[in-house]
Order: sequence, then C-alpha cells, then structure tokens
Amino acid sequence: MSQTVAHDDLSAFRRDLHRHPEPAWCEFYTTARIVDELETRDLDAVHYGPEILGSERMNVPDDDELAEWFERARDAGANEEVLAEIEGGYTGAVAVLERGDGPVVGVRVDIDALPILESEEGEHVPAGEGFRSENEGYMHACGHDAHATFGLGLIDEILASDFEGTLKVFFQPGEEQIVGGKPMADSALIADVEYFLAAHVGLDHPTGEVICGIDGFLAVSHFLAEFEGEPSHAGGHPEQGRNTVQAAAAAIQNLYGIPRHADGPTRVNAGVVGGGTATNIIPEECFVEGEVRGGTTELMEYMDEKATRTIESAAEMHEVDVDIETLGRAPSATSDQELIDAIAPVAGDVEGVTNVIERDELGGSEDATYMMQAVQDNGGYASYVGVGTSHPGGHHTSTFDVEEASLDIGVDFLTAAVLAVAERRP
Amino acid sequence: MSQTVAHDDLSAFRRDLHRHPEPAWCEFYTTARIVDELETRDLDAVHYGPEILGSERMNVPDDDELAEWFERARDAGANEEVLAEIEGGYTGAVAVLERGDGPVVGVRVDIDALPILESEEGEHVPAGEGFRSENEGYMHACGHDAHATFGLGLIDEILASDFEGTLKVFFQPGEEQIVGGKPMADSALIADVEYFLAAHVGLDHPTGEVICGIDGFLAVSHFLAEFEGEPSHAGGHPEQGRNTVQAAAAAIQNLYGIPRHADGPTRVNAGVVGGGTATNIIPEECFVEGEVRGGTTELMEYMDEKATRTIESAAEMHEVDVDIETLGRAPSATSDQELIDAIAPVAGDVEGVTNVIERDELGGSEDATYMMQAVQDNGGYASYVGVGTSHPGGHHTSTFDVEEASLDIGVDFLTAAVLAVAERRP
Amino acid sequence: MSQTVAHDDLSAFRRDLHRHPEPAWCEFYTTARIVDELETRDLDAVHYGPEILGSERMNVPDDDELAEWFERARDAGANEEVLAEIEGGYTGAVAVLERGDGPVVGVRVDIDALPILESEEGEHVPAGEGFRSENEGYMHACGHDAHATFGLGLIDEILASDFEGTLKVFFQPGEEQIVGGKPMADSALIADVEYFLAAHVGLDHPTGEVICGIDGFLAVSHFLAEFEGEPSHAGGHPEQGRNTVQAAAAAIQNLYGIPRHADGPTRVNAGVVGGGTATNIIPEECFVEGEVRGGTTELMEYMDEKATRTIESAAEMHEVDVDIETLGRAPSATSDQELIDAIAPVAGDVEGVTNVIERDELGGSEDATYMMQAVQDNGGYASYVGVGTSHPGGHHTSTFDVEEASLDIGVDFLTAAVLAVAERRP
Amino acid sequence: MSQTVAHDDLSAFRRDLHRHPEPAWCEFYTTARIVDELETRDLDAVHYGPEILGSERMNVPDDDELAEWFERARDAGANEEVLAEIEGGYTGAVAVLERGDGPVVGVRVDIDALPILESEEGEHVPAGEGFRSENEGYMHACGHDAHATFGLGLIDEILASDFEGTLKVFFQPGEEQIVGGKPMADSALIADVEYFLAAHVGLDHPTGEVICGIDGFLAVSHFLAEFEGEPSHAGGHPEQGRNTVQAAAAAIQNLYGIPRHADGPTRVNAGVVGGGTATNIIPEECFVEGEVRGGTTELMEYMDEKATRTIESAAEMHEVDVDIETLGRAPSATSDQELIDAIAPVAGDVEGVTNVIERDELGGSEDATYMMQAVQDNGGYASYVGVGTSHPGGHHTSTFDVEEASLDIGVDFLTAAVLAVAERRP
Repeated sequence: MSQTVAHDDLSAFRRDLHRHPEPAWCEFYTTARIVDELETRDLDAVHYGPEILGSERMNVPDDDELAEWFERARDAGANEEVLAEIEGGYTGAVAVLERGDGPVVGVRVDIDALPILESEEGEHVPAGEGFRSENEGYMHACGHDAHATFGLGLIDEILASDFEGTLKVFFQPGEEQIVGGKPMADSALIADVEYFLAAHVGLDHPTGEVICGIDGFLAVSHFLAEFEGEPSHAGGHPEQGRNTVQAAAAAIQNLYGIPRHADGPTRVNAGVVGGGTATNIIPEECFVEGEVRGGTTELMEYMDEKATRTIESAAEMHEVDVDIETLGRAPSATSDQELIDAIAPVAGDVEGVTNVIERDELGGSEDATYMMQAVQDNGGYASYVGVGTSHPGGHHTSTFDVEEASLDIGVDFLTAAVLAVAERRP
Repeated sequence: MSQTVAHDDLSAFRRDLHRHPEPAWCEFYTTARIVDELETRDLDAVHYGPEILGSERMNVPDDDELAEWFERARDAGANEEVLAEIEGGYTGAVAVLERGDGPVVGVRVDIDALPILESEEGEHVPAGEGFRSENEGYMHACGHDAHATFGLGLIDEILASDFEGTLKVFFQPGEEQIVGGKPMADSALIADVEYFLAAHVGLDHPTGEVICGIDGFLAVSHFLAEFEGEPSHAGGHPEQGRNTVQAAAAAIQNLYGIPRHADGPTRVNAGVVGGGTATNIIPEECFVEGEVRGGTTELMEYMDEKATRTIESAAEMHEVDVDIETLGRAPSATSDQELIDAIAPVAGDVEGVTNVIERDELGGSEDATYMMQAVQDNGGYASYVGVGTSHPGGHHTSTFDVEEASLDIGVDFLTAAVLAVAERRP
Repeated sequence: MSQTVAHDDLSAFRRDLHRHPEPAWCEFYTTARIVDELETRDLDAVHYGPEILGSERMNVPDDDELAEWFERARDAGANEEVLAEIEGGYTGAVAVLERGDGPVVGVRVDIDALPILESEEGEHVPAGEGFRSENEGYMHACGHDAHATFGLGLIDEILASDFEGTLKVFFQPGEEQIVGGKPMADSALIADVEYFLAAHVGLDHPTGEVICGIDGFLAVSHFLAEFEGEPSHAGGHPEQGRNTVQAAAAAIQNLYGIPRHADGPTRVNAGVVGGGTATNIIPEECFVEGEVRGGTTELMEYMDEKATRTIESAAEMHEVDVDIETLGRAPSATSDQELIDAIAPVAGDVEGVTNVIERDELGGSEDATYMMQAVQDNGGYASYVGVGTSHPGGHHTSTFDVEEASLDIGVDFLTAAVLAVAERRP
Repeated sequence: MSQTVAHDDLSAFRRDLHRHPEPAWCEFYTTARIVDELETRDLDAVHYGPEILGSERMNVPDDDELAEWFERARDAGANEEVLAEIEGGYTGAVAVLERGDGPVVGVRVDIDALPILESEEGEHVPAGEGFRSENEGYMHACGHDAHATFGLGLIDEILASDFEGTLKVFFQPGEEQIVGGKPMADSALIADVEYFLAAHVGLDHPTGEVICGIDGFLAVSHFLAEFEGEPSHAGGHPEQGRNTVQAAAAAIQNLYGIPRHADGPTRVNAGVVGGGTATNIIPEECFVEGEVRGGTTELMEYMDEKATRTIESAAEMHEVDVDIETLGRAPSATSDQELIDAIAPVAGDVEGVTNVIERDELGGSEDATYMMQAVQDNGGYASYVGVGTSHPGGHHTSTFDVEEASLDIGVDFLTAAVLAVAERRP
C-alpha cells in the first residue's frame, strides 16, 4: 500500500488539536478545526450540529462553562460559521463519502480531552517541542488528538483508493465522560452502517503492534446523587435538622454492600463526596458521585437498579430529598469474529506493523459500545481495534504522549481494515 | 454615674473595627488598632505577642493565609511596630491597670469575626452608613466589634473612677473557632485574677436589658479527621484501593450512634465532609470535620473519647490512615452566684438599663469558659454577663447589627459591675 | 392506727402468690386467687374478665402458651368459675367499695411476674422457707406478690375504717411488659376516679422508708420488627437473595443514630436480634426487638416515629418486607404535689415507718403512668408512692426478696394515704 | 468387566448407613461399621483413630454432644473395640491394599450426614421401604451413604482384579461442614499418593451419566465471630454498656462491602446472627456466623483476611471483645486433564453407563480439594469425578434419594478408573 497522506500533515494536525484540549460538549475549537479540514475534501456530506445527536445529551455543562469554552475557541481562531452551528455544546461531526454500490462502513474516532494538568518537563515531547496544552488544566492525555487525526487521514487514503461503498467517519464528542456515544448511536446517520470499527491508540501496546478486536468492556453508569435536607444548629437543636451527611453515609455503606452476582463481575464506587458547611450545623446538602459497572450490560443495570434503591431508601431513612442524575453511561460490547477474520490477514502487511494481535481485553469502559451495539442490533458487524504506540506515561497521566510514528500506522491500518471489510463482506 | 467616654468615640472605634473584620489568628489590624489606643492611655502594662498565649494555639491557618491577612492589615494602615510583634498569628492583647491594694478583676472581650458576606442592603446600617466590611466575605456578625469597644470604654471609665485594685482586660482572639480561650487561660496573666467577667452583646435581648450571669454552656470540641488511603481504578482493580470514603461513611454512621449518657445532654455532628477525585477512582483522601458536645466538660470528653475511637477503628477497618486534629475546644462553665449577687443590685442604676435579668441560659458554646474555669480553679469567682442590643438580623447572619446605644450601656454596665465586685469583694 | 389485718394472713397470701408467678396475660391463678378473696369481702363490686380492659391488649401470647398457663392454673387449684371468665388472657381484677358521699379514690397494684429462674440457695428466704416458685423459670422478682397483698390488705383496713367515699383497687396485669396499664386506663372503671395512687415496693429503699411521690418515669415503647426476605445460596446465587440480616444491620446502625433532642433525654436500644439459618444461605428471616424512651411522652413519640421510619427504610433498601409491632408502651408521668402534701404529714405516723421521703426519681419506666395520666386528664390528682423493703438481691435478679415486715407497713401506709386524701380533698 | 460384588450386598450396606446418619466428628456408628467390613477383607492395613488426622480438627462438637452420639452408636450395636479408638470424635478410616510395584492410587469417599429431617412420605423410598433415618432430625441427604458404599465395593473389585500398585481408600468424616478434608490431607497417609480420585453421586446428573473431571469449586471459609461486651440498663445507663449488637451491625454492614476483586468471583455472607437478652438491656453477647468464598483459594484468603479485619475493627469501635473461630475451610481445586484423559476412554465401557461427560462445573464447595491439592503439590494428579443418580429431591432436601442402580455403576466406574490410571500412568 502506498502512503498518500504526508506524515508532516498528520503531525501538524494532531499537534494543533493537542494544543487545544477541550472537555465533553465543549469541543468547539476541535470540531470547527475538523470541519474546516473536511470541507476542503471531496466529500458527499459533512454533518455537524444538533442533527448528529439523536437523543438527549447527558451531563451538559452549565451555560457559563459552555460560554467560557466557546469564547476560548473563538479566541483561538475557530471558524465562526461552524461555531454558530454548534453553540450550546452540539459538538462532534460526521463525514460521509460515497463511492458506488459497496457496503456502508462506519469508523468512530473520539475527540475530547481530560481535566489533567499537562507536564511541563522538557522530556515530555509536547512541552519540549512546543505544542503543550494552551488550555491550562486540560490535556489530551488519552490520545484522542491522534484518534481525530486517524479519522482525517483515513478519509484521505480512502479518497485516493479504489474503495467501493460508503464510508462514514464519526468524530465523537464526550467519550471520557461516556456521554457522546449514546446520542450518536441514536442518530439516523448510524442506521445504515453495516460494518463498524472503533479505534483506540496505545493501551499499553507499543508502536508497531495492532489489535484486530478488543473485548472485555465493562458496562458502566455514572451517577450523581444530590441530597437536600434541613440545616439546624447541632448544639441547640439537633432534632430540627434533616441530615444529608448521615443519609449519604448510610447510602455509601450499603452501596458497597450490593450483593455480588453469580453471572459475572460487578463494580460500585462512591468516587467523590462532599457536603456540609460547618462543624456546628447539621449538614443541609451533600452529594455522592459514583459509578456502577458490570461484565455485561445486564449486570450493570442490576447494579444501577440496586444503587438507585439504596440511595433513595437512605434519603427516606433520614427524611431528606435526593435527586439522582445519570451522568454518563455505556453498555458492554463484543467484537465480532467475522470482522476480525477479515482484518487480521491484511494487518500484517501494513507498513510499520510488527505484531498483529487478534483479540485482547480492555478491562475498562468505552461508549463506542453504544454504536457497536446499534450496528449489531441492525444485523451488522462491529469491532474495536487498537493501534499500539509507545507511550512514556500511562493513559490519563500528565506525561502521556503518542509516538507520532503510530499516526501513519493507525491511518494505514484503518484504511487496510476498511478496504478488507468492504471487499470481503464478511 | 457620670459618663466619661463620649458616645461618638465609642461609635467611631467600633465602626473602624467593623470595617476590618478578621478571622481567628488573623486579627492583625484589630490587634494593632487596639494596642494603638491602649498605648495612649495611662496603663501599667499593655501585653501582646506570644507572651499572652500560654499554650499551643489550635488550628492556626497556614502561612499563606496568615501572610495574606497580614498584608491586608498593613495595607489598611496598621501600626508596623505592633504588626512585627504579632506576625505569625500571635494576635490579641491584655491591658493592665493597677490602682492600689484592691482585688484583681479580669474582664474578657473577644475581637475576631466570621466568614460571612455582609449585607449590602441600605437598611443594614453598616451598609447604609458606610462602614460595611472592607474584607469581602468576612463580617463582624456576632458583635465582637462592640465587645472590643466595651473593653476600651471600660478602661477609660475605670481610669476616671475611684477604683482600687487591679483591672486586666483580655482582648481575646479566635473565639468563633473556640481556639483563643485556651491559650489565654493558660497564660501567666490570668493567674492572679480573683474576679472575672466575660461579656457578650445581643443574644436576643433588646437594648436596655442586661443579664448578670449566663449559664448553660455546652462543652464542645471540634475535630478534623483526615483519612488517607490508596487510589486505584474502580473498574480495573477495586481490590487494590484503600477506600477513604468507605472508612468515613463507617465512621459517620457510628459517630451518630455513640451511646447517649444518663448524666446529661450530649451532641455529635459530622458537619462537613469531602473526598475523592473521580467516579472511577477508589477515593484516596477524605476528611470529616465535626464536633462533639456535652452538658458538662466530662460529657464532652466522654463523647470525644468515643468519637476518636470510632474514627480510628473505621480507618483500621478499611486499612486507611487517619489523622485526627482538635480544631478548637471549650469546656462548660457556671456563673458564680456570688458575683451575680454583687452585680445585680447595681445594674438597674446604669443609665439606659430598663431590665435586669439575674440568670439566663446560653444553650451554645463559648471558650471564655476556659478563663472562667481557670479563675474558679484558683479559688476566684467568674460570671458571664450579657448586654442587650436590639439586633435586626440574628447572630451569624448577614444582617446582624448592634444598636449603638448599647455601646454606652455596655461600657457603663461593665464599669458598674467591676466597681461593685471590687468594693464588695464577694 | 390499729392494725386490723393479721400479719400472718398477709404473709400467707403473699407466699401463695409467690409460689405461682405468672407472666403478662397469663396471670390465671393469681387473678382467680385474688377474686376468690375479694368475693369473701363485703364489697360493692368485683370486676374481672374483658370488661376491665377498655382497649386492645398488646403482645398477647399465642394460644398454645395461653393454654399452657391456663392448664397450669387449673392444676394448681384455681377457681374454675373465675377461670372461665378470664380464659384467653383477660386477667386482672378491680374491686369497688362504696361508703357514702366522699371522693373516688383509686389504687393500683400490679400482679404479674418475670421470666427469671428463682434462686435455690437456702439463704434465699422463699427457697429456705418453702415457698419458692413452682413455675420453674418464672419468679416474682419485682415484688408484685407484695403489691397484690397490699391491695387486699388495704381493702380490709378501709372496710374496718370510717372511710367516706369510694375506693377502687385495680389489680393490674402485665406491668413488666408494660401491656396492662393502657387497657386498664382505657376502661370505664377509671373514669370517675378523682385521686389515684400507684404503689411499688423496694426500689432500693430499706424497710421503714416510704416515698410520697415518685417521678422521673421515662416514657417507653417496645417494638418487634420482623423482616422477611428471600433465601438463596450464598455461593451459587447471592443476587437472588433478599437479605434480612443486611437490612437489620442497616436498621440497627441508623437506629442508634437517631438525632438527640434538645428538649430532654432520649434512648434507643436494639436489645435482641436473631436471624438466618446457615452460613451458606442468604438469610430469609431476621428480627430486631428493641425499645425507645424519652424524658417526656413527646420525646418517646419522636424516637418512635424516627425508629419506625428507619426500620422501614432499611427494609425498603434491601428489598425485604418488615412488620413492626408495638409490644408495650408507657407514657411519662408526674406525681402531683397536691397529693404529696396530703400524704406526707400522715406517713410518719404509720407504724414501722422510720423515714418519710417526699419525692424521689425512678429513672425507669412503668405503665401505671397510663392510669395516672387518665386521672390527671380528667382533672384529678395522681401520685406514685413507694414502700421500702430491705431486699437482699436487686430487682429482677434471682435473689430478690421482700422483707415481710414491709407488707404491714405498705398496707398501713396506703390506708393512711387513702384516708388522708379522702378527708383533705386536696 | 464382570461384576464381583453383589448388588444386594451394596444395597444392604448403604441402607444400614442410611438408617444411621451422623454429623461431623460424630460418625461413630458409621466408622465402626466400615471398619468392621474392612477387617473382614484381605487388606494390608486399616487405619482409624487419631493417626489418620494429621492436624487439629476444626469445629469439634462439645463433650456432651460427642457423648450423646457415642452412646447412640453403642446402642445401635457398633463394635466396642473400634468405638474405643475413635472416642472423642476421631472418626473416619483409611484402607490400604498393596499389590506389587504399581503406583499409589488414592480414592476419597465421605461418610457424614446432614441435620435435615427426613421425609416420612411413602413415595420417599427410604420411608416406603423401611430404612428411613433412625436419628430423627438427621439424614443422609447428600448421598454419602452411597459414597461409603462405593469405597467398600471398589475395594472388593480391586481385590478381585489384576491391579498392580497400592490402593488407599479414604473414608473421610465431616465433609458437609468442610472440617474433615484438611486433617486427612495433613496426615502421613496421603504423602505417597500419586493419583487421586474423589467421587460424588448425583449433582443433577441422571443414573447412567458419569463425569470424569469436575472443576469450579469455590474456595470457602466458615467463621464464627462471638462478641462479648458489657450489659447495662438501656434506660438508666446506656453509656455503661458495651454494645455487641451495635458492633455486629457495624461488622455486617462492612463485611458485605469488602471490595470486589478483579481476579475473579468473591462471596461473603453473614448467614446467622443472634444476640441480646431483653429490649431494655444493652446487649452483652452477640454472634455472627458467616462465610467467605473465592473463585480461587487466594481470593477466598483475600476475603477472609478482610473479613477478620472488619470484624475485629467493629469490635474495637464499640469497645467489645470478639473471638473469631474458623469453623471449616476448603480451598479451590482443578481436576487434572491428564487423569481425565486416562479415565474418559474406559468410562463408556462400564456397564450401565449411557453418557460420559469429560468436564463439568460444581459451583459449590468441597473439602476433598485439600487432598487433591496435597497430591498435586507432591507432583501427583487428581480429579473429582461424578456418578449420576436420578434423585427425586434435590441435594440437601428431605426427599433426596439415590437410585440404587447407581451403586453398581459407581463401584464399576471407580474400579475402571483406578485400573486405567494405574495401567496408563499418565
């Protein structure tokens, strides 16, 4: 396979995104930058704005926060026309390229960043080479800058190829908070996709290694429980308070005690708590932000139903109100052997690939699973593939980085996979 | 009794302090301002700096916070020489006036303020008349500006009187956080005090009402428990975490369950909690800030010992470390009938006093009790007296205010009380 | 005062009852024996059976247990005619004696025993002198055998006196389980009582001491919470169980954490728990038997309402059912000073009385309070009086005993009190 | 294969044992009966008494209970000489048969029964045919009567065969309480065993089905935590109690909250609880009987260590003592493929076998795993095999029964397996 896209272009694009990391529903600069690029290509459609999100978005930041990120994108030079369409947090984009009668192949790449302060050390390449995050306290610490680059490069390679069929590339917002996958999976754009690939870089695999099918996604649901009671003076009138900290403590004790399930692994965590105002005031407000997981979607739902019951009963017990919000959610998913069988034979021929792994386990969560599930429910096939990169720091740490040789490998591997799938129609 | 101190001087001094409210161990401007005034009087000694604090101070703010308040005091024009002595948070002052062979009478007034945002409404007098807090977010919302004024006015009146004996006025820092009473009670300056009065304004009594002896102080102790565990990914390795939120929840559940005591009322409150960083991380750090109280000092100590055991066992249970710090503490105390018997007969003659109450109950906590106890332990007598003021908002609210007619009443009532006590030697 | 009733008769009667101790609603022998005696006196009415219980009885034993005690009473020679009227547990009796126009005076004595195994040691008088309990495992360990004797002796003394008025003696069942007071207080027989005395022997006062008015009754309510869930194999299918032990543990943790109340003392205790069948079965059934108390009836009701909410929410939390039954209940009460003022002056003249105490505190619970309250609510006066007895073992222990000299003192003290009250009409 | 042992003998022996079911460490009749039979055979050694138990026995009944079962065995006609050796609960036996130079093959059969009341219904064969349990309330409800019969029949068949090697048959006591496996595994008798088979009847497999290797044993540990505190009157002096029910509740809440483990399934159950004496007494004693399990021995040990810590910390928290006893324990184990490969080919040839299953999952716990592990640790091989029987009621129910045709199949299958293993030396 001949390389169409220049390494320098891939690198430049990735570094531009790396300098502008944005969290869920705030990917204004990122979306505008991607759309700008797409609109210079010979594509059949570039979708963005509310139309690409087919159901209500979870956990949208408040207006002030949205406005702050919007202004920041504008200040960084984002395209005003695009910005106008995505104001209010309707981020993400979908590119469509139609070439004849072949199958519809979908590829998902995610584009959001994390609330992590990026390392300033010289040996951290983005710091050393001048493309460290300009949004202090936020960082592309999971390689989504590379993912978006894979998406753009893939389009260029397919444009230059003899591909027959339809390619849809989904640039998904809000994966880190598992909020973007569901509305994209609920959009009309996914309805005709027959083969679907989602891609991730790194995952402790070195540059040169690719994985044809990843499984072991724990289904997950994030919740925020906000308790509201009644304050009173803890010395003068303890009986007049309705104590949210007591309610939260009862909830937490019993959340961790939700029965284990014979059908597979389950998880629960009360990850963040906070409440109360002073030692001498019965605490009026308290929150618990947490999550439940399951080895299957059913197991996650079992945990979620129990967690809701536990929290509500704890509130009832202490006569306080509670409001439980689902902050994000992702089902489990399985990569189809049919797709792996199509991809694995060609993966070894990709330039730079030194090791092809058929299947691996993720052991974490991802909301591309919503899209995988939607395609599979429609009778199609899906696989979650991996592109190794020798990353110095772990994912979600301040020194994570992508070795840029893997940009080319990722683009070529995805191109080879899309072509193989389209040709062999498993 | 003829009035020596001009109302306008009292009002001006009180308003100056009101504009510069400062929290515990940060009363730099207030202390400097008081010392400035004292040094213009014909006193036998004015003590300030470390010498007036006879034991370790609890809950001192960190260096940054101390430095910020220090600079703010300097910017507001505080006397540099005084500031140099009290740097690092050695706030408060003690004035000594010796006149012949009479008894040693001590009077305590407190000087610190609260972290409350003062009302900007025109009907709130400090806002309407231009002496609203200049330290945004802090406020003299409990009348300690009036208390300091009482202390200064009392000195002037006693200087002008035929008082025989020694008067010591203790300008105590950090009452709101119950941190200043103990070190002042442990200083050598209190050792020879035979009669002791502490004063408070308001307490829901209108201007014109005075109380000769207040009781019903709940002994109290504030604690901060900081748990430290081990983070781990809640999905990937829940067993590798050492979960501080779980430990805190177990502690809270069992803190409220400390057995009631047959000897009198007890209290416990986990007033503020916080911990964790993300829904998917087993929480590494968590804190619980709370308090215990008792109808007597022994009951408070019973609760405190149980609370410590409960928190430490909860930490042990979940394999996390915990550090428990006492943030503040105050014993219970009782006003001596002997002093009340001396004061009550003269109180009605004070100009402006329309109603004399012999005894009342506080139902809250105060750390003047440490000083009362020290004097009583030495064989002396102590009483906690009240000066009514018609306050529009409640104590510790943004619209609390002192009706300034009560400044004169307070000064005269305390003067009458000191003279009565010195003359009659109960 | 001349003694009408012979000591030997009092002793014989008391020892007969002592040999036949019976628990709440099972006082078949005791009731029949009392009625037998009453029917030989010149009384105006002897009431027994359902008519003396004006509301539903709490915590009645099941049919088997009632039948067993019934047969035991029959075997011991109880009067068959009386037995027929009280079958099913309608125990207790009320004697009425009318003598002219004077006031209606009520006196309550209780008649039930405790589930305690009586000492067999020779120095324990009932064992040594041959009147130890014949109902193995049950014992008059609180002196109710003496109380019933007081009631009978009082009637004889009043019959022989110049008393003018109406005397009603209430032989109350089920005091130990605080179940008999309420239905007796709800009967029509109490409606016209103007002065009311309840009596207790011992209470750590020696023979010769009498108390004219006892207070400090904690209001109390006993509850039984029975949880019912679903068993399942703890290894094979933990998720299929609905775990009652988990629910009970959550309830217990939070019961002890019910907020303290500013208005006075409160208490809570989960005194008995039990549940589950095997280590490897998720426990299907569990019970918690407990109590709440308060310094006033309102405080007890506050605790009771919170306890119910806590238990029900804990059941809801763990998806199990719960049934909460009130096993017994007693309000608080206060002895009227008016009655004490009438009784105290004559108490010292009673033969054998060496010390008269006006008021004392009980610090426990009693359900004579229901009757005291009923009389007071009707505008009458009530007092709870004490008759000292030098008891070797404490109340509710296997070596408790009544020094029989106090039988005469009790009878004479109550007679003097009834006469004084009737004559002086406070 | 020709059948050596007569069906009627097998049936008679099994029915004799069935009439005399005995629980762990009380298998006096059973042991004596087995030894009687063994001593009539031409064996090289018959071991019984303390020598066959190589480590301390867990959960031995108290002396009274042992004595009661001992007398019952004597009354049923057990051999006095054998009884004398096993008095005190040293039950079980090991038969050794040496035939030349071949390998040492061990077979384990268990012999104890369950505390279950056997059905009296006519359609329950033991009731209908007159061999229902004579030890009321106890029952061979898991087929160990058949297991012991397998062991005896196997010896007879091997005696009649051309077997070369050494056969050791372990008649293990106390499997139901998982107490007998460990001391037998720790005895010297197992040290030279190279191939080891444990057998179980039923397990929902019909007569005619055999399983060559069973896995999926959850490692398990049973514990008994006994809390001891201090009683006090719940109304009068709640603060003087040390409350074991509160401690147990805290323990239970947190036991269920032990973190899940990424390495596999874990379990915890507080299966039985009990404590306290009266609603008005702070409960002095309370116990929790429970268990932990794990998919591997390591996971069970993780749970066990956490459970111990949790219980001890809960006791510490409430100032009570706790004693934790391990009641029984069993590790996990895996059947060796090498043995399955040897057995499976010959299993189909056994008369009556209609279906051969290579591997199956148990999903429960067993303490033959201790012996399997001991052999494997010594470099040998082990497998847990199954002998189907069409049982009308489930295991551990009052209508469980063994179809006696499976007695012959079990004997022949084990014989074939032992011969195959000895010959092929995998």
